[in-house]
Amino acid sequence: MKIGIIGFGYWGTNLVRNFANLDGAELVKVSDQRAERKQFLDKLCPKAEFCTDPAGITDDKEIDAVVIATPVFTHYEFTKRSLENGKHVMVEKPMASDRKQAEELINISEKTGKVLMVDHTYLYTGAVRKMKELIEQDQIGNIKYFDSTRINLGLFQPDVNVLWDLATHDISILNYLIDEKPVSVQATGVSHTGNGIENIAYLTVKYDSGFIAHFNCSWSSPVKIRMMLIGGDKRMIVFNDLEPTEKVKVYDTGYEHKTDEDKTRILVDYRAGDIYIPKLETKEALTMMAMDFKSAIEKGISPLSDKYSGLEVLKILEASQRSIKDKGAEIKI
Amino acid sequence: MKIGIIGFGYWGTNLVRNFANLDGAELVKVSDQRAERKQFLDKLCPKAEFCTDPAGITDDKEIDAVVIATPVFTHYEFTKRSLENGKHVMVEKPMASDRKQAEELINISEKTGKVLMVDHTYLYTGAVRKMKELIEQDQIGNIKYFDSTRINLGLFQPDVNVLWDLATHDISILNYLIDEKPVSVQATGVSHTGNGIENIAYLTVKYDSGFIAHFNCSWSSPVKIRMMLIGGDKRMIVFNDLEPTEKVKVYDTGYEHKTDEDKTRILVDYRAGDIYIPKLETKEALTMMAMDFKSAIEKGISPLSDKYSGLEVLKILEASQRSIKDKGAEIKI
Amino acid sequence: MKIGIIGFGYWGTNLVRNFANLDGAELVKVSDQRAERKQFLDKLCPKAEFCTDPAGITDDKEIDAVVIATPVFTHYEFTKRSLENGKHVMVEKPMASDRKQAEELINISEKTGKVLMVDHTYLYTGAVRKMKELIEQDQIGNIKYFDSTRINLGLFQPDVNVLWDLATHDISILNYLIDEKPVSVQATGVSHTGNGIENIAYLTVKYDSGFIAHFNCSWSSPVKIRMMLIGGDKRMIVFNDLEPTEKVKVYDTGYEHKTDEDKTRILVDYRAGDIYIPKLETKEALTMMAMDFKSAIEKGISPLSDKYSGLEVLKILEASQRSIKDKGAEIKI
Amino acid sequence: MKIGIIGFGYWGTNLVRNFANLDGAELVKVSDQRAERKQFLDKLCPKAEFCTDPAGITDDKEIDAVVIATPVFTHYEFTKRSLENGKHVMVEKPMASDRKQAEELINISEKTGKVLMVDHTYLYTGAVRKMKELIEQDQIGNIKYFDSTRINLGLFQPDVNVLWDLATHDISILNYLIDEKPVSVQATGVSHTGNGIENIAYLTVKYDSGFIAHFNCSWSSPVKIRMMLIGGDKRMIVFNDLEPTEKVKVYDTGYEHKTDEDKTRILVDYRAGDIYIPKLETKEALTMMAMDFKSAIEKGISPLSDKYSGLEVLKILEASQRSIKDKGAEIKI
Repeated sequence: MKIGIIGFGYWGTNLVRNFANLDGAELVKVSDQRAERKQFLDKLCPKAEFCTDPAGITDDKEIDAVVIATPVFTHYEFTKRSLENGKHVMVEKPMASDRKQAEELINISEKTGKVLMVDHTYLYTGAVRKMKELIEQDQIGNIKYFDSTRINLGLFQPDVNVLWDLATHDISILNYLIDEKPVSVQATGVSHTGNGIENIAYLTVKYDSGFIAHFNCSWSSPVKIRMMLIGGDKRMIVFNDLEPTEKVKVYDTGYEHKTDEDKTRILVDYRAGDIYIPKLETKEALTMMAMDFKSAIEKGISPLSDKYSGLEVLKILEASQRSIKDKGAEIKI
Repeated sequence: MKIGIIGFGYWGTNLVRNFANLDGAELVKVSDQRAERKQFLDKLCPKAEFCTDPAGITDDKEIDAVVIATPVFTHYEFTKRSLENGKHVMVEKPMASDRKQAEELINISEKTGKVLMVDHTYLYTGAVRKMKELIEQDQIGNIKYFDSTRINLGLFQPDVNVLWDLATHDISILNYLIDEKPVSVQATGVSHTGNGIENIAYLTVKYDSGFIAHFNCSWSSPVKIRMMLIGGDKRMIVFNDLEPTEKVKVYDTGYEHKTDEDKTRILVDYRAGDIYIPKLETKEALTMMAMDFKSAIEKGISPLSDKYSGLEVLKILEASQRSIKDKGAEIKI
Repeated sequence: MKIGIIGFGYWGTNLVRNFANLDGAELVKVSDQRAERKQFLDKLCPKAEFCTDPAGITDDKEIDAVVIATPVFTHYEFTKRSLENGKHVMVEKPMASDRKQAEELINISEKTGKVLMVDHTYLYTGAVRKMKELIEQDQIGNIKYFDSTRINLGLFQPDVNVLWDLATHDISILNYLIDEKPVSVQATGVSHTGNGIENIAYLTVKYDSGFIAHFNCSWSSPVKIRMMLIGGDKRMIVFNDLEPTEKVKVYDTGYEHKTDEDKTRILVDYRAGDIYIPKLETKEALTMMAMDFKSAIEKGISPLSDKYSGLEVLKILEASQRSIKDKGAEIKI
Repeated sequence: MKIGIIGFGYWGTNLVRNFANLDGAELVKVSDQRAERKQFLDKLCPKAEFCTDPAGITDDKEIDAVVIATPVFTHYEFTKRSLENGKHVMVEKPMASDRKQAEELINISEKTGKVLMVDHTYLYTGAVRKMKELIEQDQIGNIKYFDSTRINLGLFQPDVNVLWDLATHDISILNYLIDEKPVSVQATGVSHTGNGIENIAYLTVKYDSGFIAHFNCSWSSPVKIRMMLIGGDKRMIVFNDLEPTEKVKVYDTGYEHKTDEDKTRILVDYRAGDIYIPKLETKEALTMMAMDFKSAIEKGISPLSDKYSGLEVLKILEASQRSIKDKGAEIKI
């Protein structure tokens, strides 16, 4: 399997490192607009060829699979061209600039029968996989809320707002862990640069069952926080991604409520019990994702982070953007 | 100065302890519906008389000043009666059940010339006072955002939602630190008890200048968090109220942005510098508030936590409630 | 049961508060050299009489039990006189200034048949009791080491060094948790005040089995740390007393070793597994100790924190002092 | 400048990565006993030749400088042979197995005029350099104590005990920050493997001035701690190497003492003030060390981490070992 990577920036470098070491695959070409990146590629993976034109990859008949790590606004074009040229594609999140583009890419992928995968790396982490396992084992119970904070002093993206940049990760986790489909979103935010691209934003996603998800994202925080609370009626989870080893804490904590007979009072029973911190699988998520991509191509099965989940994330992001521009109005999905 | 306290529950106990030790004042009477509380009062402050009927305090001619620490729905009635009987009043936050009630109480207070003060204890803490000082010294610069998280496994209140219970504190701090008046609010939330009283809620407050404030409140979190971020263009503050001594951290962190000449790109300069943790005044906030109440009565000056700030908090709470019930619609203040 | 308390300083105040509320006992008298403390006692416990002379308590025929919370050098005298006057005694840790005094007090107590108890409050905390339970259930396995750090910016005691002040707590916990008797100690330390009383000291306690205990104590640290590691061959415990709720963490971590056949290499297997944070009993330790004292008097049974454990602590402290003065020489116990 | 590296294990890999990218130097050869490491070298640095015999490097006339990252017991031999063959040497810490060997290596280096440098990487970190700067600026005042804890669940070394493995780092920092020479050491420890190699050990280093240093090292802790306290009479430093960015905290905390006139009491004034967290240089320490090695060779100046500091560390380690074996006796240096 011959692989080409388009985009050799920060994340592209991680991808090159992983695909260069992937058994059963060969990284043959890497492209980046900046010609001076050739030198670094020669150090990192001397066997791979360098080109500045992405077409050198999308149109190369030798290449079986393309990995795309370029700015969001180019995802659609490079993915489409690669698929149309009969290649399998793994594209950075978010998979396209809007829902319509994503749906078109899915259509092409379905027609050509080639794998289209979105790089939601978090789904491959030991932490997220453990949370999925706990939920599937019904250790958490009915999940009542999901609350995510992902803030730091981050690079202001020139083309997408902070939700597209940061909440993408958390929405992909949400969708992976929770089966119910959202019905509407509301979002507010603020742009401190005057270019209409929010650097702080808050997103609420609503569901028919009463389950609620909330996202707090910022590129403007002096401190870095990556924390997620998942509250079930049996137990609750705190996922702190900055903890080196104790990332997932399971609280035997809950509350039950009942209304008394004359329905005037709510009686709530609290329970604060033991805490359990499971040991997590430590294999690098990116390595597992690269293996999943290769395995999906070889076996014709769907990868964990597939095109449909990529589309679901995009639906929420797109609706959130409309809500922010419409002063926080509720937008149906 | 003779003082009576109505309500001898959790917070009332703290008030009794403080007013019993206040120089130049005498705690003469405490009321609570539960007759069995008399025994505890006899231990805590044997000189104070006990009664079960609040009228024993609001109508007692000997009493100069009344402190009210009862459920929210009774604040209006007890405050009104005390003021009309010529007494000074300090009432628990929030000062009344709605804006109209609060405005009426303010009117009565203005007519009688008696002090009406709302117990926003946080304003008297060393942490909040230090933040006020830093802002007044222009060390923080233009403030761009305010982000507060106050969550824990808390008592579900039967009559008010989690914003009325918890955000009240943070809104009073916001109003104290920020001079600009808010223009609108948006809030979402969820009630897991089926009684329409939200136990998780998110509130965004918007301002004309682009400044934004956000509040994340929950009675359903397995972990306790009390954290506030205040981002200025000079420096940023992190206020973590659970830190025993390092509550206020000042980050010499910021970003400046400019648009390039052809207005197509935003250039952002980041700055991450030293951090400074000022030593805080450790005098108990409640003691300082009791002294401020006494001083306001004696000198006829306005206390720090005055009736007008109490009203401003109520305006935001009331608007937030309307927004939640109206599916998160933007509500003007 | 009529109780008198000698010493109404910082810790004495806590004792007064607890014994004033102890069911089935009556706090009748409190003594303190400083006459001005009477006023505070009148507020805290108006029913108790005040005196400045300790003899007002040790010699009062009405009093059944005496609680002593005075400087260390007075413990022996007040305890002896109280016991000789037929009273039960609970004395602050350490129980006396040296081992000989302690042994004499124990003799008197055995002769008079009165309870002699030492205030090792920590033994009554939920954390220490949980650790005892885990060890008794053999969840920790063979315990290999005990490592305690108790440092802060603390009051320099004028008469005893930092080990007598701080390590006392940890040694009492060590003795409670570990059945094996120590064989020798070594200690080093430094005095920054020139009066020969160490404000920083390090103590190692050795045992025949190879088990080792180490104590790091300081009054001169800018940060407060109260942490204890207990390493077993099954599991290990971290006890962080500054954590508000997650004080005891049990690590399913260990190592096993074997020597290979030609005895040249050691093979060590590591195991890092789940972590478990048990919920702790939250009843106040001081209350439980007061109840244990009363119960020991009434039922004639030994309290948890008895005179013999008080003596064992003293033996280690006394030997540590000799070691420090003898340049760290090993001192047999 | 042509460089060869002996030893291509965990640390050797980091060295290869850094020297392969060092401007003005060329990594020409790497040796490792395990022939299968060639494949990995081909990926990491394809231009470098691989050999299994260290002599391929120590005796290669093309090579100017040798970097040694092999087990401790081989340091002396490879360093000696390299120096005698006219090469500059950087050797892993500790520089040799005992003081005599180290002194011999220093002699050879002085005779040949070649650089001999010991890899005390910590000296090149932003944190240690900032602490050095603060001390040189007299912001800390007279330093009273140094207290280091470096514990984790670590690899049991087969040939050296935990002090040689872990305290080496901290002793090199101590020597770098503190000008005074130590006069004696005392150490205790325990071996849980029965091979006489301590996996837990405690070391106290004493100085004439009253300054004291203490080291707590363990391979058997369930938690990882890397913390250092440095107490001065002006300010105190806490260096927590596990903090991602806030590694060095400077506490405006101290105590002053005076004896009162009749010399019976010590009066201590406490001061707890602001805390300051300086921003640190983030350049990788290993890169700076490689640059320092090259610069020392080219300019004939002494590197920061020179052979004499390497010897000083060894003196303390060797004395600590004698003390442990002699039941903690005080060993003069």
